[in-house]
Amino acid sequence: MTVTYSRRVANAGLGSFFHLLLRWRGSIYKLLYRELLIFTMLYCGLSIIYRFLLNEGQKRLFEKLAIYCDHYAELIPVSFVLGFYVTLVVSRWWGQFESVPWPDRLGVLVGGHVRGGDEAARLVRRTLMRYINLSGVLIYRSISTAVYKRFPTMEHLVQAGLMTAEELRQLEALPSTHSKFWVPCMWFVSLTMRARTEGRINNDVALTAILNELNSLRSQCMKLYSYDWISLPLVYTQVVTVAVYSFFLACLIGRQFLDPAQGYPGHDLDFYLPIFTLLQFFFYVGWLKVAEQLINPFGEDDDDFETNWLVDRNLQVSLLSVDEMYDSVPVMERDKYWN
Amino acid sequence: MTVTYSRRVANAGLGSFFHLLLRWRGSIYKLLYRELLIFTMLYCGLSIIYRFLLNEGQKRLFEKLAIYCDHYAELIPVSFVLGFYVTLVVSRWWGQFESVPWPDRLGVLVGGHVRGGDEAARLVRRTLMRYINLSGVLIYRSISTAVYKRFPTMEHLVQAGLMTAEELRQLEALPSTHSKFWVPCMWFVSLTMRARTEGRINNDVALTAILNELNSLRSQCMKLYSYDWISLPLVYTQVVTVAVYSFFLACLIGRQFLDPAQGYPGHDLDFYLPIFTLLQFFFYVGWLKVAEQLINPFGEDDDDFETNWLVDRNLQVSLLSVDEMYDSVPVMERDKYWN
Amino acid sequence: MTVTYSRRVANAGLGSFFHLLLRWRGSIYKLLYRELLIFTMLYCGLSIIYRFLLNEGQKRLFEKLAIYCDHYAELIPVSFVLGFYVTLVVSRWWGQFESVPWPDRLGVLVGGHVRGGDEAARLVRRTLMRYINLSGVLIYRSISTAVYKRFPTMEHLVQAGLMTAEELRQLEALPSTHSKFWVPCMWFVSLTMRARTEGRINNDVALTAILNELNSLRSQCMKLYSYDWISLPLVYTQVVTVAVYSFFLACLIGRQFLDPAQGYPGHDLDFYLPIFTLLQFFFYVGWLKVAEQLINPFGEDDDDFETNWLVDRNLQVSLLSVDEMYDSVPVMERDKYWN
Amino acid sequence: MTVTYSRRVANAGLGSFFHLLLRWRGSIYKLLYRELLIFTMLYCGLSIIYRFLLNEGQKRLFEKLAIYCDHYAELIPVSFVLGFYVTLVVSRWWGQFESVPWPDRLGVLVGGHVRGGDEAARLVRRTLMRYINLSGVLIYRSISTAVYKRFPTMEHLVQAGLMTAEELRQLEALPSTHSKFWVPCMWFVSLTMRARTEGRINNDVALTAILNELNSLRSQCMKLYSYDWISLPLVYTQVVTVAVYSFFLACLIGRQFLDPAQGYPGHDLDFYLPIFTLLQFFFYVGWLKVAEQLINPFGEDDDDFETNWLVDRNLQVSLLSVDEMYDSVPVMERDKYWN
Amino acid sequence: MTVTYSRRVANAGLGSFFHLLLRWRGSIYKLLYRELLIFTMLYCGLSIIYRFLLNEGQKRLFEKLAIYCDHYAELIPVSFVLGFYVTLVVSRWWGQFESVPWPDRLGVLVGGHVRGGDEAARLVRRTLMRYINLSGVLIYRSISTAVYKRFPTMEHLVQAGLMTAEELRQLEALPSTHSKFWVPCMWFVSLTMRARTEGRINNDVALTAILNELNSLRSQCMKLYSYDWISLPLVYTQVVTVAVYSFFLACLIGRQFLDPAQGYPGHDLDFYLPIFTLLQFFFYVGWLKVAEQLINPFGEDDDDFETNWLVDRNLQVSLLSVDEMYDSVPVMERDKYWN
Repeated sequence: MTVTYSRRVANAGLGSFFHLLLRWRGSIYKLLYRELLIFTMLYCGLSIIYRFLLNEGQKRLFEKLAIYCDHYAELIPVSFVLGFYVTLVVSRWWGQFESVPWPDRLGVLVGGHVRGGDEAARLVRRTLMRYINLSGVLIYRSISTAVYKRFPTMEHLVQAGLMTAEELRQLEALPSTHSKFWVPCMWFVSLTMRARTEGRINNDVALTAILNELNSLRSQCMKLYSYDWISLPLVYTQVVTVAVYSFFLACLIGRQFLDPAQGYPGHDLDFYLPIFTLLQFFFYVGWLKVAEQLINPFGEDDDDFETNWLVDRNLQVSLLSVDEMYDSVPVMERDKYWN
Repeated sequence: MTVTYSRRVANAGLGSFFHLLLRWRGSIYKLLYRELLIFTMLYCGLSIIYRFLLNEGQKRLFEKLAIYCDHYAELIPVSFVLGFYVTLVVSRWWGQFESVPWPDRLGVLVGGHVRGGDEAARLVRRTLMRYINLSGVLIYRSISTAVYKRFPTMEHLVQAGLMTAEELRQLEALPSTHSKFWVPCMWFVSLTMRARTEGRINNDVALTAILNELNSLRSQCMKLYSYDWISLPLVYTQVVTVAVYSFFLACLIGRQFLDPAQGYPGHDLDFYLPIFTLLQFFFYVGWLKVAEQLINPFGEDDDDFETNWLVDRNLQVSLLSVDEMYDSVPVMERDKYWN
Repeated sequence: MTVTYSRRVANAGLGSFFHLLLRWRGSIYKLLYRELLIFTMLYCGLSIIYRFLLNEGQKRLFEKLAIYCDHYAELIPVSFVLGFYVTLVVSRWWGQFESVPWPDRLGVLVGGHVRGGDEAARLVRRTLMRYINLSGVLIYRSISTAVYKRFPTMEHLVQAGLMTAEELRQLEALPSTHSKFWVPCMWFVSLTMRARTEGRINNDVALTAILNELNSLRSQCMKLYSYDWISLPLVYTQVVTVAVYSFFLACLIGRQFLDPAQGYPGHDLDFYLPIFTLLQFFFYVGWLKVAEQLINPFGEDDDDFETNWLVDRNLQVSLLSVDEMYDSVPVMERDKYWN
Repeated sequence: MTVTYSRRVANAGLGSFFHLLLRWRGSIYKLLYRELLIFTMLYCGLSIIYRFLLNEGQKRLFEKLAIYCDHYAELIPVSFVLGFYVTLVVSRWWGQFESVPWPDRLGVLVGGHVRGGDEAARLVRRTLMRYINLSGVLIYRSISTAVYKRFPTMEHLVQAGLMTAEELRQLEALPSTHSKFWVPCMWFVSLTMRARTEGRINNDVALTAILNELNSLRSQCMKLYSYDWISLPLVYTQVVTVAVYSFFLACLIGRQFLDPAQGYPGHDLDFYLPIFTLLQFFFYVGWLKVAEQLINPFGEDDDDFETNWLVDRNLQVSLLSVDEMYDSVPVMERDKYWN
Repeated sequence: MTVTYSRRVANAGLGSFFHLLLRWRGSIYKLLYRELLIFTMLYCGLSIIYRFLLNEGQKRLFEKLAIYCDHYAELIPVSFVLGFYVTLVVSRWWGQFESVPWPDRLGVLVGGHVRGGDEAARLVRRTLMRYINLSGVLIYRSISTAVYKRFPTMEHLVQAGLMTAEELRQLEALPSTHSKFWVPCMWFVSLTMRARTEGRINNDVALTAILNELNSLRSQCMKLYSYDWISLPLVYTQVVTVAVYSFFLACLIGRQFLDPAQGYPGHDLDFYLPIFTLLQFFFYVGWLKVAEQLINPFGEDDDDFETNWLVDRNLQVSLLSVDEMYDSVPVMERDKYWN
């Protein structure tokens, strides 16, 4: 479920972001605590080995190794690489949200231009809107784990009332190995053309406007499909992951507290737990987690788009728009500011 | 209220930005002074403990700790993380402003295409524009604290003349749990279709243009709703907040003035108040405040969008455009450059 | 006046950017020399105090202070903050230029679709274009200091031939406290509708195209107005200004040449004037000046948009397009490549 | 073939990016292993020379050289240059993907507006779609190595059924030395006009909508062609390559393990293989490889667009859309939510 | 001429960018070698003075100066300033390319909608397209040095067949001091309106589509003109140039090899030529050259847009589209996949 906190930060008061730190759902803690535990355990393990298991000579060697690791770890430009990478992931994430197809615009046109209060007309309007929703769900099934779990087979779509058994039969009969999300769009076209021929749509401008709007929706579906198909190049993701992981591997050794008695510069204190390294882990790996969460916003993370909610909302609003709301205007009366 | 200072910086003269530092409303001082006070007090508290309450041995330990904190605090890439994060927040902030629906374009089409000077025609035009404004206000109520305070219940909308009691009844009668901001849009559609049937709109091209413009407005409302619904991932905000806060926690200890007599490098002077750390606090936390202010521009910060002003302005200009200005052209005369 | 140097840098030759350093108008020197003078004088003042007025003990203290300031000044991430801020300002600057309304597109439609060579038709076409220009100028008056100086009162617009006295009267009679730049747009609509009724515009597609184009212009005017109204958040500008100014305040002390005899590291030489600090001043404050100049491109800086030129050019080209050029085609003849 | 891993990272779990490190196809290892081998061999070669072939005096000199190289290598801003460059390349890469022409939208219009179930009408519809696909393939042939290999001559297009022999003859007869990808577009126009004249397209709005859509496709083809023609300036690519390569050349010497007995600071240990330098090589050169892969996404890299798949998919879906799906609507029945 | 190397980097193989380093045309070497020579000569001159002409005391002073310069040169954030500046220049460069007007889309509409195979109709179609090309060339003449050289006077346009003598006469007769590139657009409008009146264009939708497309082209011309008129603020360019040049001025002194016998830290070796400083010069000044080349892409650099090629290509394709290709469809036959 999407984590909405806009209202919480409406006003910039005393530490308004500070309060966000106290949340659990969708929080960095929930995402990170396992990694942080593993990191801490590895660190402590190494620490125990250094303190209790090594002999003096090995200790000296380990200390040199630690200083060496500490020095070179700082050459890894983690923040730089992460900054550019996360910016890219965030822009794709928003691009994907903007490609989510909303049938509202088409609802306006179908509800307005397909005339007639009889059952046949109602059937046309409702069926048109159902086709649009069906196209969207077909795309969602191929990109969203949540929707796929809800509709594991096409049969489930029939049961959910998104398509009829006959439609499923025709869809499956079509000889094509490629994604068939566009087939309901073509049915939409054919049905619209019939409505024009039968005069339910009474002019060509409206007809073209409807088809144009359909095309916008189809393009958005295509775009969602493309975002899924053309991932960010694997190499980029690997480069970033290697940078972050290798930095913290180096820190495991390099940030050990060395025996203050040896007098290494910067090693006067022994805190047992390297609080600043844990903090760095916290926000570097946390930053990487931002990317992990957003790179595919159609998963089931706390912060992913609620696709199933979208499916339900869109179907309901579509049908209401073209049926209950058809030709409905409240009695008009003069408004308060009349003259 | 939005803080406008464009005119103040129209010309780049001697220190034209400098003068901006002397403002209070919407200023960094107003936003920050409480945090700065808290930080200073904590710093002074620690300073007093170090200077007066610790014994010699504890002092030496504290000094080592301070040097340790100072060293590691510099590893926290605050400016980097903030730079990328604030850039993102600013781009969303402007994206939200660009999604604010203005009914002006629809005013042009309704005022032009819905013909007739009789009361019925006036009623149609005014009602159409009122529907549009109502849709906007319904969205604002769900995203803007200021508008919500002004219209805490739907009844207030009726009193404000934005909707009639009958419209409220029909709106509430509609069986849907989702946001109903789109319902006035559908009334708009139905009323437009009637106007077409009755011949007040006398051609199909105009009709389609009006519905198209309506759809643009509806999409903008949807976009505002989406910006509110899909916040920036909580994790990102938390990462940035943790980075900034932990940096200044480390500074509380690390930037203490240590006893110059101990001869620690860089600790030759004792100023009691760390002016540069306060400056850093000033612009790092100030930068974070930019994000806090902009992340939800529909709050009541000094710099947030004046949604209530928008509501009033849009209603007034809408009604003037389609009623007073209907079919009004000043007597034409030859302009000065004629031949 | 805008400083155009594209032609100067058409080819990347030996030091083609170097020649740009030799310009005065719109240059960094012209913008900076006063600030640079003040900075140098303050620096020299402090230098004189240190060298001649302080006693030995005070000198030692001052030296410690200088080293302290020098160290901490480097912690201020001036270049980082400036980089992000200026990028933002530049993108808004270009966004504003792209919102400048050009009546050319409307000239094409009005010149093409409003038929008739008689005086009445000419009057309609010229008046339509004048309305558009008037709307633009009304906006410019509220955002551009240069245009406001040229037309300090509405009466000046009448004298300049942009509106008639009757139009001014009607404009002022309209009961609205909000900006009335949109009123000429509504006159345009009414006049266009009349032209359609009278048959001067002979089809509805053209009519809708004209109104659509009008709406684009109106949106652009609105956008200019919005850029003016919604400034970059004051806090951001203040953060950047504080960062830059405090950096150079710290430099005033921290970059003093200390007595080489004291043997402070890095203080072996005494040049009296810190050439590199002046250079830093030059490009850091210069970079800030880029922001100062661009943050409001409708002022009277050397590099601001020439709004008055725009007003003149647009009026002239508009009237020529729809009047002199109306129905004008040179005698056609076969071109050189015929067969 | 495009490497899709969206599904793999749908949820941000424990180390979800970590698993991506274990892939081979499209991975950084596959791209880098040769460069890494060469680098390692050169490093070892130099190491052997230093350890076994140089005499004492030469060793001392080499050591000084190594320290010198190590110091200055750090002045090369590799990460900075790479960050900006890769961001640019990625944005062009996505821009190219967004320019890929999909005939789906045109399929909707042709399938809807070109009426008639007879063979002549089917022929018109199929031929129209074939022209569009042909235009796309002509562009692909000039920019994509994969498509060029599949259709090395125009004759291959005829064999593949994308054009007829007669069409090829006419295409080649046209006297123009420029790319002729637009010729099938003009055939499309002529054929559409005939369909309008013959009444298969029965209104002018539809006609204009079709031509408008055709123009969108043509513009996209043009854009693909432009991306190919206007490469990123060679100088930029060279600057980045020189920065990365010279950094690692400097590392070859500067990161050698020097004789710990000489007591150079930071040279207390001898690991034979510089693990951190190899890591740096890994992600700096890996980052550059991201650019190498994306700068021309129409090659045959693991991560390039699958143009041949696109060609097949588009042809199949186009023909299905306008032929099998023509006027096809499943029997309508009341949906599950009826009343 | 544009330097295209897309095909060279289609596949990311072993060092595929490395091969790009071996090019001369459009290369960094060609652009930089003079600057690099000058820099090297200045460096050597200073080196000779230091080694042979200064006495011991002066040498010691020079050495201190060198160390001073070296230290402060590193404070100049060259890479940062360049990164942001070049990103900006590159985005404007691509923005300019996207504003280049292609008459192809208009060719589709004119070729389709202006009916008639007789000479008069051909003349109308060819003249319309010639007007469009003429508008483009008028803009190019004012922004592109290459096109201006080709057509130094308007008379040359007549000779090149782009306009007739009569058209030139009328153009010059028009009383306006502003750029007249829009005049052929107005002729286009008038001629289109006549074609509509004469029935060659047989419907209003087509007419409006043509005028709309014309407006797109006109806007693009305007945009090119604006990019030329509104340069990047001179101050920004100067700031960047000063930063880069002053950095290398400081390097001239600061990177001199000092007498190793003096034992300055980091000055143990004497290589005579500072290879790393030359490398830095190579990519910092090279990066600046990217900006110099792209800031005005209508010059005659190796990498600038080939405007003259564009002029020729566009004229040829325009005329072919509307004349040879008019109403031309190859004989239709069943495609390979029929049933």
